[in-house]
Amino acid sequence: MAMAVAGERVSIAALEDFCLRVLSELGVSDQDARTTAMALVTTDSWGVFTHGTKLLRGYARRLRAGGLRNDLSPRIEKDGPAWALVDGQSTLGQVTSAFACEAAIRKARKCGAAFVTVRNSCHFGAAGYYAWLLSQAGMLGIAMANDVPSVAAPGSKGPVLGSNPIAFACPGGDADPILLDISIATVAGGKVYARCKRGEPIPAGWLVDDQGRPSQNGALYPERASLAPVGGHKGYGIGVFIEILAAVLSGAAVTKQVGSWLFGDLSAPTGHGAAFLAVDIGAIMDLPMFYRRIAALAREIHAEPTAGGSPPLMLPGETEWRNRRRAEAEGIELPEDVIASLLETAAECGQPFLV
Amino acid sequence: MAMAVAGERVSIAALEDFCLRVLSELGVSDQDARTTAMALVTTDSWGVFTHGTKLLRGYARRLRAGGLRNDLSPRIEKDGPAWALVDGQSTLGQVTSAFACEAAIRKARKCGAAFVTVRNSCHFGAAGYYAWLLSQAGMLGIAMANDVPSVAAPGSKGPVLGSNPIAFACPGGDADPILLDISIATVAGGKVYARCKRGEPIPAGWLVDDQGRPSQNGALYPERASLAPVGGHKGYGIGVFIEILAAVLSGAAVTKQVGSWLFGDLSAPTGHGAAFLAVDIGAIMDLPMFYRRIAALAREIHAEPTAGGSPPLMLPGETEWRNRRRAEAEGIELPEDVIASLLETAAECGQPFLV
Repeated sequence: MAMAVAGERVSIAALEDFCLRVLSELGVSDQDARTTAMALVTTDSWGVFTHGTKLLRGYARRLRAGGLRNDLSPRIEKDGPAWALVDGQSTLGQVTSAFACEAAIRKARKCGAAFVTVRNSCHFGAAGYYAWLLSQAGMLGIAMANDVPSVAAPGSKGPVLGSNPIAFACPGGDADPILLDISIATVAGGKVYARCKRGEPIPAGWLVDDQGRPSQNGALYPERASLAPVGGHKGYGIGVFIEILAAVLSGAAVTKQVGSWLFGDLSAPTGHGAAFLAVDIGAIMDLPMFYRRIAALAREIHAEPTAGGSPPLMLPGETEWRNRRRAEAEGIELPEDVIASLLETAAECGQPFLV
Repeated sequence: MAMAVAGERVSIAALEDFCLRVLSELGVSDQDARTTAMALVTTDSWGVFTHGTKLLRGYARRLRAGGLRNDLSPRIEKDGPAWALVDGQSTLGQVTSAFACEAAIRKARKCGAAFVTVRNSCHFGAAGYYAWLLSQAGMLGIAMANDVPSVAAPGSKGPVLGSNPIAFACPGGDADPILLDISIATVAGGKVYARCKRGEPIPAGWLVDDQGRPSQNGALYPERASLAPVGGHKGYGIGVFIEILAAVLSGAAVTKQVGSWLFGDLSAPTGHGAAFLAVDIGAIMDLPMFYRRIAALAREIHAEPTAGGSPPLMLPGETEWRNRRRAEAEGIELPEDVIASLLETAAECGQPFLV
């Protein structure tokens, strides 16, 4: 098809190919383009469209302006048996994060567990993608990052911390991995924009205005409102520790020092931090036994009685794996905003979208 | 004083001495009694009275009945450079957890990071105590545990996971450690009991009845209601991963297999799991630099404008350290329920309370 329209399905391969062409055109190495394309398209295939190929346009503009570097590579700045400090050198956040995950896996295979903290990264897309990468290597994986402040603290008038995503993944043996990817906000900012765009009201509990009062006026976000932290002091507190693990400890930019990857100066590095933890399951427990125990937990949760008419309880990630299988079989049905963004990217980069 | 009454302040030393005498009388070794007394009294001194010396009576009854062992010690069952599997051998959860933290610190000093998972533990009191122990060794510390199910999943009719506490601690150099200790429930079950006892209504969002409906009837808890997970799928999802890290991976009892330390068969082990992570800050970053960066983050958060009349924003743990300093200077003002429990413990163990 010469141009994708909403409702049409795009194959995983075709979407990856488009990302590869765009990134290659911008001087990104084949390997780094593949790493980034795989991250973005896998995320779309999970149905997490806010963190998939929609991001490509912003990354492309930043590559063109020099805030993202196509001529450098992430490197290990310091390391020890079970840890590493990675300097992303302002390459794509996906490239830096995949590099950091590889280091975590390598070290965890030797030592049983490893922690990697990262500086000079950029926006890395979906935290869950990296936790999943770790789980693909037989690890219990945790991934986290900081970001430009958008989330209030209990009592604050403005944003204090970034959405500071954290993701966990556990391989399932013959079953799908268990995969959780959450931010410290009650809901993602993308959901506020989407409701505003559709003219729908903002539910109570999502936003705090610039006087620290609960607000349901989506038009205030992000200039004059912040996202409410999930569970009040609980989400805020977890966010503080993500900031410490991913940014204070790595030497990355902290809170307000972080540059906006989308709205900030496109020629300047954003300075994001990130952190990854890998625990080598097979070192600790016989793997078939571990998978039997995971399967037993899954069976127990699926067999729980549910409230009137509700479907069975789900483990984290089940929706994503269902979406993935459909995407593999039938292609991905991209939402309008993603298609619009991809068409703009195509025009700006001189790369036809899906011919 | 021959008997403590509400409003009177008890010194940290006197309270520790009472715990020591009770535990020694029950055949617990000096060292293990000290470890446990220190954990319980430190927690009281933070003002976290639900997880301090109030627990002593239940532990004492379990020691007497044999469900907790005074004749065994926790041991490392398997380990590698940056991990260990600890078998608590049904000793006091405090003893097992402190032992596991020591292993984590020892290994993290050599490798930069270490993960320790634990089986055959028991109720361990406040997760924050162990995260703090790790932070006292210059580590970023994380502590977690599973427990008897009391928390609903989104859509469930009954409890699916335990309160599955998780705590984080970061040393502050000259400043207090940053310390977060939370459960995956919107609020702790203890708060439901306390409101019921005082005849106060239960706020919306705390409880789910046995048909999966939101409930404000505290009398239903715990038989016919469960605690709501904080942030819905977010709290539930984090709880699943705590269950995996602390129990599936360690070979501990999982969800409904866990015995209630308080209401279950006092002569049988509870089988709790736990997990601890230590990251050696000094291996990764020059320590004075790290503390300067932590101080800068703290200054920034303290300087945030707050909503009309609100006091400055706090870092996690600030209330606890304020309570601790007052406890050191003036003693601890124990609440009535704690004093009642300690007096019962005194009577049952033939050890006078504070003579």
